[in-house]
Amino acid sequence: MKQNKYDDENFFSAYEKMPRSINGLESAGEWHVLKALLPELRDKSILDLGCGFGWHCRYAREQQARAVIGVDISEKMLQKAREKTDDPLISYIRMPIEDINFSDEQFDVVISSLAFHYVKSFEVICKKVYKYLKPGGSFVFSVEHPIFTSRDEQDWYYDEKGDRLHWAVDNYQSEGIRETTFLTENVIKYHRTFSTYLNDLIDAGFTIKAVKEPEPSEEMLESIPEMKDELRRPMFLIISAQK
Amino acid sequence: MKQNKYDDENFFSAYEKMPRSINGLESAGEWHVLKALLPELRDKSILDLGCGFGWHCRYAREQQARAVIGVDISEKMLQKAREKTDDPLISYIRMPIEDINFSDEQFDVVISSLAFHYVKSFEVICKKVYKYLKPGGSFVFSVEHPIFTSRDEQDWYYDEKGDRLHWAVDNYQSEGIRETTFLTENVIKYHRTFSTYLNDLIDAGFTIKAVKEPEPSEEMLESIPEMKDELRRPMFLIISAQK
Repeated sequence: MKQNKYDDENFFSAYEKMPRSINGLESAGEWHVLKALLPELRDKSILDLGCGFGWHCRYAREQQARAVIGVDISEKMLQKAREKTDDPLISYIRMPIEDINFSDEQFDVVISSLAFHYVKSFEVICKKVYKYLKPGGSFVFSVEHPIFTSRDEQDWYYDEKGDRLHWAVDNYQSEGIRETTFLTENVIKYHRTFSTYLNDLIDAGFTIKAVKEPEPSEEMLESIPEMKDELRRPMFLIISAQK
Repeated sequence: MKQNKYDDENFFSAYEKMPRSINGLESAGEWHVLKALLPELRDKSILDLGCGFGWHCRYAREQQARAVIGVDISEKMLQKAREKTDDPLISYIRMPIEDINFSDEQFDVVISSLAFHYVKSFEVICKKVYKYLKPGGSFVFSVEHPIFTSRDEQDWYYDEKGDRLHWAVDNYQSEGIRETTFLTENVIKYHRTFSTYLNDLIDAGFTIKAVKEPEPSEEMLESIPEMKDELRRPMFLIISAQK
């Protein structure tokens, strides 16, 4: 059963208010790192898995991508994405990521931003992406970091005064469902270990090109004081792999 | 300045009493995972970095390795290693790991067990190992996991009753010295992020073949009840890479 939280009224309305939902990529603390790992997109055929409001799809077209397909499970997300552009070279498909079905070797680049921790099997994704990528093609994606997702709470551990004492890790080796709170309650995420993310890619045939645990940019660290806590534990994991 | 803790009387005498020091590889919770990643060793030329009592060197010879060199900074460790075998095809060299200097493409396999978290620059190690390995050669090593090494305390967080509440992570992005307690006080280790371990290998030219965060074997989980806590956070990271 695939949770489609982004079509839940309350969740969607909270998500809409996030800085990254309003201002797009430049408000996403990890975007500068993901962007730096992307290959040249000009004249390339791009697939964006879990495209949400379509920020990455539009970015790809700004870089002169030849054609872009965005996939998302949420109709509300895709409605917004469609409102934001009438570019005929971007197509949106409503579908759970794990159900995608394209022609072999159709894409040059597959992107995904913060979507795979909502998907039960990363192994299935890796096998499909490998099949649909051209030889030499790139697979670049971000997920919530295994250190971040290990506990249901997915939160700091606080002292009596409410200060952040440290980040708590537990149940690390027990992969699977985490019933957590993100914007609203009862959000289902899937915890996976670091080694599973890497070995599933390798076993599907990919070569690992780079692994990043992004820190906020200097600008963000200066302008948003709380951002310095992001240096205390990694929130995101970004991997670049090649077929 | 390179700390040589294993030549410290008190530290060495505590280390000598550990199960893995007395009983060897089968008493090391992660050995079954490291072993499974090793290539066929028969007729191969092997280098063991941070060889300690020489358990892995002797294992390689049991597998019919052609020649084995063990490197360790500690004279006390090498004395023990020499006492344990008179095999003329195992040579021991006393030297800090980061100072090694061999012929290009001399080795088929480079092994290291729980040594690199004592070394300041992993980048230097990767470059040297790459140089000294034959094309196609394997580099298989274990280190303490970045989740384990992030705080000086390198310990669980306990409740008032003294029970293990969870594992605490902090200062993750701040790589470098951790002044910690292992067997005795004032042991210097170096914390590195997961991404640094992988990117240093990739940047040196290696292909990542497998990444493991070992769990204790079924036998250990059954015979030693406390071992189940090892499933709550990873203690070791094992990587297999190929030139």
